[in-house]
Amino acid sequence: MAELSSQKPLARVLAEARAAQRAIGHFNVSDLVLLKGVLAGAQGLNVPVIVGASEGEREFLGTAQLAALVRSLRDDCPFPIYLNADHTHSLPKALEAARAGFDSVVFDLSDRPLEDNVRCTKAAVEILKGVNPDFIVEGEIGNIGSGSEIHQTAATEYHFTTPADANEFVRATGIDVLAPAVGNFHGVLREMLDGSQDKRLNIEVIRAVAAATCRPLTLHGGSRTNEGDLVKAIEAGITIVHINTELRLAWRQSLAEALASHPDEVVPYKLLRGPVDAVAQIVRAKLRLLCPSP
Amino acid sequence: MAELSSQKPLARVLAEARAAQRAIGHFNVSDLVLLKGVLAGAQGLNVPVIVGASEGEREFLGTAQLAALVRSLRDDCPFPIYLNADHTHSLPKALEAARAGFDSVVFDLSDRPLEDNVRCTKAAVEILKGVNPDFIVEGEIGNIGSGSEIHQTAATEYHFTTPADANEFVRATGIDVLAPAVGNFHGVLREMLDGSQDKRLNIEVIRAVAAATCRPLTLHGGSRTNEGDLVKAIEAGITIVHINTELRLAWRQSLAEALASHPDEVVPYKLLRGPVDAVAQIVRAKLRLLCPSP
Repeated sequence: MAELSSQKPLARVLAEARAAQRAIGHFNVSDLVLLKGVLAGAQGLNVPVIVGASEGEREFLGTAQLAALVRSLRDDCPFPIYLNADHTHSLPKALEAARAGFDSVVFDLSDRPLEDNVRCTKAAVEILKGVNPDFIVEGEIGNIGSGSEIHQTAATEYHFTTPADANEFVRATGIDVLAPAVGNFHGVLREMLDGSQDKRLNIEVIRAVAAATCRPLTLHGGSRTNEGDLVKAIEAGITIVHINTELRLAWRQSLAEALASHPDEVVPYKLLRGPVDAVAQIVRAKLRLLCPSP
Repeated sequence: MAELSSQKPLARVLAEARAAQRAIGHFNVSDLVLLKGVLAGAQGLNVPVIVGASEGEREFLGTAQLAALVRSLRDDCPFPIYLNADHTHSLPKALEAARAGFDSVVFDLSDRPLEDNVRCTKAAVEILKGVNPDFIVEGEIGNIGSGSEIHQTAATEYHFTTPADANEFVRATGIDVLAPAVGNFHGVLREMLDGSQDKRLNIEVIRAVAAATCRPLTLHGGSRTNEGDLVKAIEAGITIVHINTELRLAWRQSLAEALASHPDEVVPYKLLRGPVDAVAQIVRAKLRLLCPSP
């Protein structure tokens, strides 16, 4: 296994965040511009960040290449950077990330029958901890949708995670972190794009699931979530908040603006400064909300 | 110094290419999409490539980060990848690249008076070889302009490198590779964009400079150069050909097309596939011209 660094183990960072009722921001990247934006946004805040990449994002970036980049960036970075293999649907892909030096995985078999999910997640936890005892495995139950993009319509049904299911799943699998369904979902709805609507969370479900599991909880699909709900959710038990779609929206919009406003410019690093800044601004605002500096 | 790999030293690759009257393609990158495009374009051709990054490009990518990426990519790559610190105007920047594990530098003091250029390049060669005896230092005399972008007008004067100056410069400095002015210049002129005009090279100057220096010669500003001239230039003594502006033009155009044709897509790795392919196509065509597979 390639050691990513001698930073504090992620488990300890999560425990400390939970104790302080703060959450760690998890930001997805699928190219260098987003990665630069995430780190630029966190500069000066003196809080840890988690950089995440799903299977699709890792396929584009390269799993080993992203790990090499983050290792290299850490050398010059005054705050801790953790690297998460987001939504990973098979043990080989999880192992590839663990061996490349990632700190954690979202081992997501939530689309399988619960018994399958339990059995395979349990096996994965054992095998992945064998690669790196500090490797953090997050499991997922319930259905929070997929695709950090713009959805035309909401899902027709939404099943909140129950405290009993959550307790049973954590107990049976030995996962370190649980991703519950608490009103959150991946992507954003078209009607949320103008900012007039946002996602609402069920704080009581979060509180009950946290109490039933005694594990840090992750909120996936954190983009365009009501800010008051987010603050309450962190107090109630959310310790990691994933932001992806908002970064992608900012990246796309600022890239289009850069091309339109500089019709003769062909130098990539000049055109890409705007997108880096746009991503950084979102990351900065989110971190200030989720994880106010101590 | 971070060792980039156990590949054949670049000096040997250049000597073999010169003996076979082939040239090594040098492709500039300033973000991951261009780097992916370069490697995708070279796939299957079984020839070496040089990835280059100027000071501006390295500032965006990160010198250590680019070296880490290339090191990681080499592990899975069936052909040799060399890493060049293109147009570097100070010893500290050249040292930074040599220490990060780059294979070579274009130490470019061509805008200074010749005596200054000679004195400082000589000192740089000694210091850089102390960091890595296999590190290749390219020196530059004459003026081939700057900026791999679209220029509205050609330079008013053009000074071809003379064999006598070239011989004196190489002898006095101890450089491994020389970049002469042989009709080439950086960037492309606006009237070249439609393909109706291209850059022409002075083959006799190349032949005379090669004979006077006994060094591999680099053609900078290779974009939109007459293809027949390129082939003759390689026969006459050019061993490295730099391509940058054509990659940037393809990158920009395909990025704009991807955004226009997918108005609702926000997933970076979906929108960036087109630009990777567009860069790869140019790289592939250039490598087939410069360095036909043996």
